[in-house]
Amino acid sequence: MPTLRPDTAPGPLPPTGAVDVPETLGYRVKNRVLGPPLDTDQLENERLGIPTGLAVFSSDCISSSAYATEEILRVLVPVVGLAAFSLVVPATGMMLVVLFFLILSYRQTIKEYPTAGGAYMVTRDNFGMVPALVAGVSLLIDYVLTVAVSASAGAAALASAFPAFAPWLLPLALFFIVLVAFGNLKGVRESGKVFSVPTYFFMVMMAVVIAVGLFKMITGGLHPQSIHQKGMIDAGSEGGGLFLGAGLVVFLHAFASGGSAMTGVEAISNGVTAFRKVEWKNARRALVLMGMTLGTAFLGLSVLSTRVHAVPYEDGTPTVISQIGKQVFGESMLGHTGFFMLQAATMLILVMATNTSFADFPRLASFAADDNFLPRQLRRRGHRLVFSNGILALAAVAAVLVVVTGASVARLIPLYAIGVFTSFTLSQAGMAKHHITRREPGWRWGLAVNGVGAVLSAVVDVIFAAAKFREGAWIVIVLIPVFVVVLVRLNRQYARDDALLERDAEAAVADPILRRHVVLVFVERLDRATARAIQYARALMADEMRAVHIAWDRTAADRLAREWVRLGLSRVPLEIVDCPDRRVPRGALEVVAAELSGGDTEVSVLLPHRNYRRFWHRFLHDNTADEIAEAVGRLEHANVTTVPFTMGSPGRVHAGAPR
Amino acid sequence: MPTLRPDTAPGPLPPTGAVDVPETLGYRVKNRVLGPPLDTDQLENERLGIPTGLAVFSSDCISSSAYATEEILRVLVPVVGLAAFSLVVPATGMMLVVLFFLILSYRQTIKEYPTAGGAYMVTRDNFGMVPALVAGVSLLIDYVLTVAVSASAGAAALASAFPAFAPWLLPLALFFIVLVAFGNLKGVRESGKVFSVPTYFFMVMMAVVIAVGLFKMITGGLHPQSIHQKGMIDAGSEGGGLFLGAGLVVFLHAFASGGSAMTGVEAISNGVTAFRKVEWKNARRALVLMGMTLGTAFLGLSVLSTRVHAVPYEDGTPTVISQIGKQVFGESMLGHTGFFMLQAATMLILVMATNTSFADFPRLASFAADDNFLPRQLRRRGHRLVFSNGILALAAVAAVLVVVTGASVARLIPLYAIGVFTSFTLSQAGMAKHHITRREPGWRWGLAVNGVGAVLSAVVDVIFAAAKFREGAWIVIVLIPVFVVVLVRLNRQYARDDALLERDAEAAVADPILRRHVVLVFVERLDRATARAIQYARALMADEMRAVHIAWDRTAADRLAREWVRLGLSRVPLEIVDCPDRRVPRGALEVVAAELSGGDTEVSVLLPHRNYRRFWHRFLHDNTADEIAEAVGRLEHANVTTVPFTMGSPGRVHAGAPR
Repeated sequence: MPTLRPDTAPGPLPPTGAVDVPETLGYRVKNRVLGPPLDTDQLENERLGIPTGLAVFSSDCISSSAYATEEILRVLVPVVGLAAFSLVVPATGMMLVVLFFLILSYRQTIKEYPTAGGAYMVTRDNFGMVPALVAGVSLLIDYVLTVAVSASAGAAALASAFPAFAPWLLPLALFFIVLVAFGNLKGVRESGKVFSVPTYFFMVMMAVVIAVGLFKMITGGLHPQSIHQKGMIDAGSEGGGLFLGAGLVVFLHAFASGGSAMTGVEAISNGVTAFRKVEWKNARRALVLMGMTLGTAFLGLSVLSTRVHAVPYEDGTPTVISQIGKQVFGESMLGHTGFFMLQAATMLILVMATNTSFADFPRLASFAADDNFLPRQLRRRGHRLVFSNGILALAAVAAVLVVVTGASVARLIPLYAIGVFTSFTLSQAGMAKHHITRREPGWRWGLAVNGVGAVLSAVVDVIFAAAKFREGAWIVIVLIPVFVVVLVRLNRQYARDDALLERDAEAAVADPILRRHVVLVFVERLDRATARAIQYARALMADEMRAVHIAWDRTAADRLAREWVRLGLSRVPLEIVDCPDRRVPRGALEVVAAELSGGDTEVSVLLPHRNYRRFWHRFLHDNTADEIAEAVGRLEHANVTTVPFTMGSPGRVHAGAPR
Repeated sequence: MPTLRPDTAPGPLPPTGAVDVPETLGYRVKNRVLGPPLDTDQLENERLGIPTGLAVFSSDCISSSAYATEEILRVLVPVVGLAAFSLVVPATGMMLVVLFFLILSYRQTIKEYPTAGGAYMVTRDNFGMVPALVAGVSLLIDYVLTVAVSASAGAAALASAFPAFAPWLLPLALFFIVLVAFGNLKGVRESGKVFSVPTYFFMVMMAVVIAVGLFKMITGGLHPQSIHQKGMIDAGSEGGGLFLGAGLVVFLHAFASGGSAMTGVEAISNGVTAFRKVEWKNARRALVLMGMTLGTAFLGLSVLSTRVHAVPYEDGTPTVISQIGKQVFGESMLGHTGFFMLQAATMLILVMATNTSFADFPRLASFAADDNFLPRQLRRRGHRLVFSNGILALAAVAAVLVVVTGASVARLIPLYAIGVFTSFTLSQAGMAKHHITRREPGWRWGLAVNGVGAVLSAVVDVIFAAAKFREGAWIVIVLIPVFVVVLVRLNRQYARDDALLERDAEAAVADPILRRHVVLVFVERLDRATARAIQYARALMADEMRAVHIAWDRTAADRLAREWVRLGLSRVPLEIVDCPDRRVPRGALEVVAAELSGGDTEVSVLLPHRNYRRFWHRFLHDNTADEIAEAVGRLEHANVTTVPFTMGSPGRVHAGAPR
């Protein structure tokens, strides 16, 4: 056992020696299910080139194209009917303008904050803690929503290919969440192999459907599907005869629903360090490619939807993208194959997209916990080096959301994207301030880009919040400040506790010991566990020692007293305390408190503990000892010791001279 | 504090002194909801005269008449149609013959076992443990069924008066169970006042409905209700043209369903001690009165049902008794009042009937736990002197049964009464053996009575089991032996544990102490809680003492080591143990195991514990200390001590000379 004397410097340490104590069942199960534990040293990231880097970080962002067009149509169709198909492309175009500026802005962020470019870090750096918390809370909320939306959309993609799954959207979405959470608990690395397949598969299928669709559209081979099938949302009758003002409101609402496509744009800026050198340059290129992919897919699908007359369904399936796929690929054998491949790719990338949140949420939560704004349990890396508690928390909250909304993307969308744009605004504004403060070469251009980015994000955020306010956005608007207040209070609590714990700590270490040390052995009956406790009690060589029995059953107490007399245990007097209300823990507490009342006394409370062989045997026996420990442990200077006796242990250890 | 030296005899003991430690929230809530705690001395029963004694003990038995006729008809009507009304009175008559012999038999039991006349006790006395367990398990099962059946029938009675309640049978039945369980946790005594009202109210209403009904029947004023309403069970078309053999089977099945009326006959024999002197004489008279009341009500209702053509409904409401009431009382204002009063009385006595089980089940369970056949937690009297754990267990199991069967009396009846008749058989056979063994004056008469009772009970029990086998009786027939086996194994486990614990215990008390005592203080960081633990560690004056830090985070470990050096804590060396897999509890276990490996060593493991002011603060902090305690406590001679430090405690205690 290596002992580090205070005068030696801490060097490399040998690991603890292996001992012959069996592992617990829980640990063996964990080892079997999750794989062997990983050592802290194994915490390394593989470095990614641009193609794999793009695959790893873009699934969240690119996958949004699978539902963004649909959510725009869901707003437009009921109000303006067929005119929706003339408005969906302009709404998409407006969104792409926003996307353009976001990409420009994040190119700046990547360069200036190549190690920790998350909104929380950038905002904390430039504006301090409270704005950073607003950004952090906004992101955490949107990570939860990303998981809920993507899992639900993935389920809808599957059910659009196989309508038999339509009634099982909720269990399917929950299954996806559990699956990805499990993979993350196992510590699936952000490895290129895993991610490249679905991401590039989706990109290829998107390219195919858009290319074939546009070709057919130009050559006149793409026809609208027959309108008014059962379950489609009803088209409004106004036709386009809306007043200008009302029309603008509807249009902005549609624009806001399409904004869900922008989530995930920040992912690359969070993971710059994962790229090969020069990191920020590679990350920037990946960012631009990601933006172009998203833009192409989103715009392409919106254009095709106008021709196909794809209309959202009340219950979410079949999806708009599947309607487009069906019309584009047609009824031929090859066409059917193409359709099913498109749905498979969509489902895969949506499930992958939840993974981005599972990587980012626990990491961000651990940053906040490092700063004492979230419970400290979130800092601890688990069995496989991942932040297990963060993963479990994210999965649980997302699952609740999915259950509450019945795995309906349409019901989740109004809550979505507001958090992301709040964090965009704060981090871009932070960048702008950064440029002003530092005035490094090229700062003017940077200021212009990030300034425009910040203003644009703020405007979009306000539009989103206003347009979707009544449908659920208000929940997010209320939750963000509430969580910030809770987090600040939590932080103050931690600070207070730490101050209390640290005040005079260094002096307290040298405190003289108390004058009197009393050992009390709480005895329920006379058996070997009790004998073991008495043996230990004598080893403590205190100033005073006695056994105490709290008599909740007079007959048993009398029997114990008689046994005590018979054995002539003169060295250990027995005190029997009447306990008419049968509250043994309270009785014990009162005995100990009386002992402590003089001050200047250290009481060791010894509780014989019987270790049973099988865990369920525990339930067959009283847990009075635990209750006593809990009650007595509230008193200062009442030190509760559990003296273990293992049932069926190999016999008594006889050794040492009697003292 | 009174100390009982081993050489003094145990005399009366003063109670523990009051100390200035606040009560826990849980206790304050319990005090508010259940009332102040009762002292063990307050465990006294009021003594009852015959009228109140009858009221207290007969609700279970008499209330059976509310559903027994209905369950007979439910068997007969679908098979023989209108001929059912010619068979219901004979089936009832046969049941009354059985009742007559049961009453005769229990008169014997009451005289011979005036203090503990339950089937478990009588059987244990005469046949030994395993038959006693069969009787005990049978009774426990039937107590559960009594609660489920009575609560469900009570709900049906309410819904028959107010059809709006018909969809709410299940929640109503659960509400009744919770209500009675709560009353029992509060410690409602078997007080005459509470019980007399519903019992006598029901008796009066029964007398009225039967008297008026028979009068109208004789004078020709009672007419059949119109047959074939919606929801009535379909009448069979055979009309009485069954073959003799098949007819006998149906008749015996009907008889078996009516047997549910016999449950509760044993209640008075369990509570003889509650009667005024001479107890057994008063109990006997009450028993005869109870039998006569049940017989009259049961027979009267069966006779009236034949005239009214009362037919059970599929979903249990309206009940047969309510159909009889409606026809007997008629449509006048007075008639309506009578009808509602009848339903109210029925509902009240049924709810009361569950109370009998709530008194008997926990008592019987505590007897079995005294004999080490059930978990020992069932022996402990709670806050209000009742066996709280038994009450909660009964309520939980009965609630599950009610949920599973959807509060349907018809579905519960096939499980019912088999357990009761098994225990009747065993206890009557036990009585017969008792007479043969003792040969006290009049033993021949007693032997005859109990012998006939035992044989009759056995025959009836076999008929019940066979007739209702496929509808659910098999469950009970399987469960009884399974539970008996489980209980016997549990008993052996306890015996083995006790043997292990008690072997050499007396010698072990005098064991010499071990040669070496090592104190290890597990340290996470340097704060006042750690300082407190070090102060206590020094007070133990062990042979060796050191602080141990399990380094799951190297940065924190280095910081701690530097602080230790800076403070020059020479008396307490710090050992830093590397822990690459971040499993702090396992690391601690290995350190302690290495220390113990030489044998002959007592290790005191000290864990600084921070007592936070509010209970939820606990969740904000790691529970690593608890995990260490759990892991290390599996090692023999590893004594885990929690050294408490209360956050915001009034400051350090400075006293005593440094040692």
